Amino acid sequence: MAKDMTLLWGSGSPPCWRVMIALEEKNLQGYNQKLLDFAKGDHKSPEVMAMNPRGQLPAFKHKDLVLNESYGACMYLENQFKSQGTKLIPDCPAEQAMMYQRMFEGLTLHQKMVDVIYYTYKVPEGERHDSAVKRNKEALTAEIKLWEGYLQKGSGSFMAGKTFSLADVVVYPGIAYIFHFGLCEERYPKLAAYYNSLKVRPSIKASWPPTWLDSQGQDTLKDI
Amino acid sequence: MAKDMTLLWGSGSPPCWRVMIALEEKNLQGYNQKLLDFAKGDHKSPEVMAMNPRGQLPAFKHKDLVLNESYGACMYLENQFKSQGTKLIPDCPAEQAMMYQRMFEGLTLHQKMVDVIYYTYKVPEGERHDSAVKRNKEALTAEIKLWEGYLQKGSGSFMAGKTFSLADVVVYPGIAYIFHFGLCEERYPKLAAYYNSLKVRPSIKASWPPTWLDSQGQDTLKDI
Repeated sequence: MAKDMTLLWGSGSPPCWRVMIALEEKNLQGYNQKLLDFAKGDHKSPEVMAMNPRGQLPAFKHKDLVLNESYGACMYLENQFKSQGTKLIPDCPAEQAMMYQRMFEGLTLHQKMVDVIYYTYKVPEGERHDSAVKRNKEALTAEIKLWEGYLQKGSGSFMAGKTFSLADVVVYPGIAYIFHFGLCEERYPKLAAYYNSLKVRPSIKASWPPTWLDSQGQDTLKDI
Repeated sequence: MAKDMTLLWGSGSPPCWRVMIALEEKNLQGYNQKLLDFAKGDHKSPEVMAMNPRGQLPAFKHKDLVLNESYGACMYLENQFKSQGTKLIPDCPAEQAMMYQRMFEGLTLHQKMVDVIYYTYKVPEGERHDSAVKRNKEALTAEIKLWEGYLQKGSGSFMAGKTFSLADVVVYPGIAYIFHFGLCEERYPKLAAYYNSLKVRPSIKASWPPTWLDSQGQDTLKDI
C-alpha cells in the first residue's frame, strides 16, 4: 500500500493519467488521492498551489519529495521501485533506445494536440487567426500520421517494441485523448488497434478517466 | 573512443548542447560529428532528414540506434554507460526526485524562452500581436524568477543539490542561452553564479558553442 504517496489529479488529463498508469504498473495502489475539477479552477486552489506552485495537475509527492512533472514522476517511480511490478525500462539496448526516443517525441504529439483542441482557450479572442487554426491542424495531422507510421513499421504491439514500457505509460494517454476527441479510427487503423488493445490492460482500465465512462467523446478532431 | 556514435549538431542549440555535455561527462569523446548551420537550412538537408525525419538537430545515433530527442539521448547514455565517467543520476531519493522534477520543468523554461526569442521567426507577420509579445515576456520573466528562487533555496551548487546530475546536463544550456541573449546578471545573481561557475567545468568548456566564442551576445532579453 502506497500510503506515503499523494496524488491530486484531474480526469482525462494525460499528464495525470501517466502517473496513475505508472503507479498501477508498479503495484503502488492505495495512495492518497483526490480528484479535482479543472472546470471549477481547482488546479489553482490553495491545496494544489501548496504542492505545485505552477498551479497544474498532477500534483504528486512521495513522502515529502515532490514530483509534479509527469515524466519525472514516472521515471522516479520506475527507478525507486525497479523490482516491483512491471519492469518499465527494457534491458535490450534497441528497445531502450526506441523507448527513450518515442517517450520524448510524445511531448511533441501532446503539444500539437493541445494547440488544436485548446486553441480558443489558450489564445485570447483578439489574437485568433483562421490561418493559425489551419496550420495547427495540418501540423497535428502530420504528427499523427508519423505515429501511425511508427506502429506500422514497429516490431511489436507496444510503442518501443515487444514489451510494455515507459513509452506506453507516457504516450498512451495522449493517443486515447485524440480518439476521445474524435479522431477517426478507420483513418488511423494502427493507432486505433493500439488504443483498443491497451484499453483492457489492468493498469489502464483501473485508471480510465471517470468522466469519460458515462459521456460521449467530442468531435473536435473528426476531420484530422 | 566513441567511434560507433554520430552526432549532427548546430552551434548554440540547447538540445544539441545537452547531448554533447552528456557525451563528455560519460567520457564518450571521439564520436563522429558534424557541425551544421541552421541559418543555411542544413537541418532540412537530406543528410539530416535521413537520420531525423523531423528535420531537427541534434540527429544522434549509437550504432544503428537513433536517439534524436535530446532528453532521450542523455538518459540512454547514462543508462548504457552507468559505470563510465560521471554518474548522472544520484542514488539519494531526495536528490533523485529533485533531479527529475527540475529536468522536466526545464522543458517549460525552454519553451518560454523560445516563445520570446523566436517570436517573429515562429509567428507569421499577419498573426503577430504586441499583446502576445508582452504576455510571452511576462511569462518568461515569471519563469526565470522561479529558477532564481530554486537556486536561492537550493541545498547545493547544482540544480538537484550537491552533485552534478542530468538536471544540469539538460538545463544548463538553457541558462547559458538566456544569458547569451542578454539576461541581466545583476538582476538574477543566483542564476548568474550558477552560469559562471559551470562555465569552467570540463564537459561544458569542451562543448561551448563555437559561434559564441568570437561573438558578442545579443540583447533580446535585457529587460526581462
